[in-house]
Order: sequence, then C-alpha cells, then structure tokens
Amino acid sequence: MYEKTISSAVIKRLPRYYRYLGELLENDVVRISSKELSEKMQVTASQIRQDLNNFGGFGQQGYGYNVEYLYTEIGKILGLDQKYNIIIIGAGNLGQALANYTDFERRGFYIKGIFDVNPRLIGMSIRGVEIRLVDELERFIKENNVQIAALTIPKTKAPEVAADLVRWGVRAIWNFVPTDLNLPNDIMVENVHLTESLMRLSYNLKAKDEAEAKKRAEAVREESGV
Amino acid sequence: MYEKTISSAVIKRLPRYYRYLGELLENDVVRISSKELSEKMQVTASQIRQDLNNFGGFGQQGYGYNVEYLYTEIGKILGLDQKYNIIIIGAGNLGQALANYTDFERRGFYIKGIFDVNPRLIGMSIRGVEIRLVDELERFIKENNVQIAALTIPKTKAPEVAADLVRWGVRAIWNFVPTDLNLPNDIMVENVHLTESLMRLSYNLKAKDEAEAKKRAEAVREESGV
Repeated sequence: MYEKTISSAVIKRLPRYYRYLGELLENDVVRISSKELSEKMQVTASQIRQDLNNFGGFGQQGYGYNVEYLYTEIGKILGLDQKYNIIIIGAGNLGQALANYTDFERRGFYIKGIFDVNPRLIGMSIRGVEIRLVDELERFIKENNVQIAALTIPKTKAPEVAADLVRWGVRAIWNFVPTDLNLPNDIMVENVHLTESLMRLSYNLKAKDEAEAKKRAEAVREESGV
Repeated sequence: MYEKTISSAVIKRLPRYYRYLGELLENDVVRISSKELSEKMQVTASQIRQDLNNFGGFGQQGYGYNVEYLYTEIGKILGLDQKYNIIIIGAGNLGQALANYTDFERRGFYIKGIFDVNPRLIGMSIRGVEIRLVDELERFIKENNVQIAALTIPKTKAPEVAADLVRWGVRAIWNFVPTDLNLPNDIMVENVHLTESLMRLSYNLKAKDEAEAKKRAEAVREESGV
C-alpha cells in the first residue's frame, strides 16, 4: 500500500477531503478536476495534488479525479472500511449527546454501551443502547471487542478510569475531559477540549480588537502629523 | 504589549499552559521552574521557554516562573480578562449539553440564550437560560451584545443561519456542524467536527495495525531466511 511517513498535517486534512467527496457523491458528481475541487474547498489546487500524491495520487491528467474511487480510497486510508465498537463512559449531558449522534454509525462507529456510576441512570436506554453500571466495564469490553472509549466524566476520575480501560483492552480514547491522561505510547488519544477551543476564539477576538485599535491610533497620529 | 506574529502552533498550546498553571494555583504552588513544568506537561523545557518568550518571557533565571503571574498573563493573552456573551443555536442534545457545561462560565463565557426552530422547546430553560424561537435572534443579538454563537443545527441550514448571525453582529462562530461556513475573513470560526475527530482515531488504529502486520511479516521472512 502506501508508506507510513505521512505528516500529521495531511492526516488532519483527509477527513475534510472525505467530507467534500461524500457531498459530491451525494450530488451524483462522477469526476472533478483538482481546480474545481480547490475552488470548492478553498485550498490551492497544488495543495490538493500534493496531499493526494502522498497516497500515490489518484488523479489522471486531463480527466481529474474519479469521485467515487477517491472517496472510497480515502475512506480506506482513514480506516473507514472497518467497523469500530465504541463505549461512552459518563452518561451526563455530553455522553448522552454523543450517544444520540447518528452520524457516527454511518461512518462505521457503533456505540455499544454507555456507562455511569449513577445507579439512577442504570437501565435507561439511548437510541436502544442501555446505560450500565461501570462495574460491568471489564467484562463488557472483553466480550464486545471494544476498541474506542469516549470519556465524558469528571476530571479527577479520568486518568484512573482511562488506565483501567486500557488494561481491559481499549486501544483508543476519545477524551472530552479537560485533562491529560498520560497513557502508554501505543494507546491513541484524541482530545476534544471544548473550553480550550473557546479560548482560541477569545484569543482571536482580542487580538483582532488590539490590531484594530493600533491601526486607529496610527491613523490618528498620521493625521495629526506627529 | 506583544507583537502579533505569534504562530498558530504556539496559540494552540497556550490553553494547555493555562490549564496546568490553573491546577498548580489550585494546589497553592507559588513558583515553578521550566524543568518542573516540562516534566509535568511532557514537553521539553526549551519548548516552554521558547513559547513563553513569544510574550516577552515571564521567567527569572534561578527563580523560575511565578505561577500566579504567569497564569494571569496567559489569561490576558487568551482574552480571558474579558467577558463574552454566547448564544447557542440549536437546542438539541449537543446544544443542551453545551448549555449545561459550567466550565465555560468560570472562564468568562456566559451563555445568554438558546435558540431553536422547534416550538415545543420554547419556554423551557437550561440552567436558568430560556430556549427561544429563532425569530427573536436579530433583536436578541443586538440587545445583548452577543459576540459568539455556537452552531449545533442541521448541515443544510448552517451556512445561511451563520450568514444571518454575522449580519446581525455576531463576530465569532463556534461551529459544531460538519460543514464549512464560508464567512467573511474577519469573522472567527472555530470548528469542532466530532466525526472528523473520530476519523483521526480510526486512521491511527488502522495505521498501527498495518505497521504491526508488516513487522510480523518481516520477522517471519527473516526467520525463514528468505
């Protein structure tokens, strides 16, 4: 297949290619040139060619890309030709929101169980998936071939729970808890830190205000001829 | 103050510094060396010094960093010395989960309103914040000095709604919708694409499996002396 020296920047961009190609496919577009794709995605055509060349390049001079083929191939690269079993740890608002998200299943990510410490939630179901007590985790992970666990629990418990999950066979943690988990190197961790995401917005808002204030001050200075 | 040529990589790391310093502060740590901080954060001490030097550097040779001072200064850089008014568009599971998240308020992000098209949700409250009909958006944004809107609505409506929000005065969009919004350049957009985040996990799981399979095949080949 392809060599494993793909930069993380390229990998970060692949899901976006996949999304655009999926939309083209839904609209029955059969082929597209890198120029057309570049206009749609607002990245340069050379960036697109470079990115896709990492995987051998799927384009043909004068024809462009075959949408369905490219979509399928990127899907394979992203591992979407396989099925993944997910559990959600923490049945609070965020855990329930994740369980209700139907888009994951379309991509091959199946939510198999939701776990909580709160006995009052036990027995409830979300989209047919039962909420269980965390005591059942070890057995459940082993019996259901769970690869991915989404963590939506309080910060203080998270590192300990994550270590348990890994010991019981989970290979990847989707971490919504605003803390670092410090797991072994061979465990994949993908962080979704919502507060940090908001902070990037506030940083940009403030930086923009300051840049504008500076510009105004300079304009005033020029006008007054100082 | 500081110059605005800070790389986006540094900006991405700042919230993490802020989080660690906040935890140190909670534990009454008064000062910390870049070496100690580097061990805690698992980044190199030179990376820490370089990152913080972007802002003039807050450390003192032989003393290290004053935790409270550094925390406050990074907070200012991130714009956390100001208050932000947020609205949530879409009162589904994810919108409700965001409204229930108490951490945002601690950082100065105040959720002022939640909006939906579903009349059955109107009048309900989440943590004291009323759910309103989207018809009220224009007036509400103007009257409440709303800077940030979180978007948790269906994909098909998102670009149009985002354009309206911007026209009515919103300056930043926190976009949970798996689509690009194509807004004017001076509008900040921070994307949280959950499915794409999951795809990075599946990519890594598959890449790891393939690397291991390759290693096993090589070991077999070596053993058989081919």
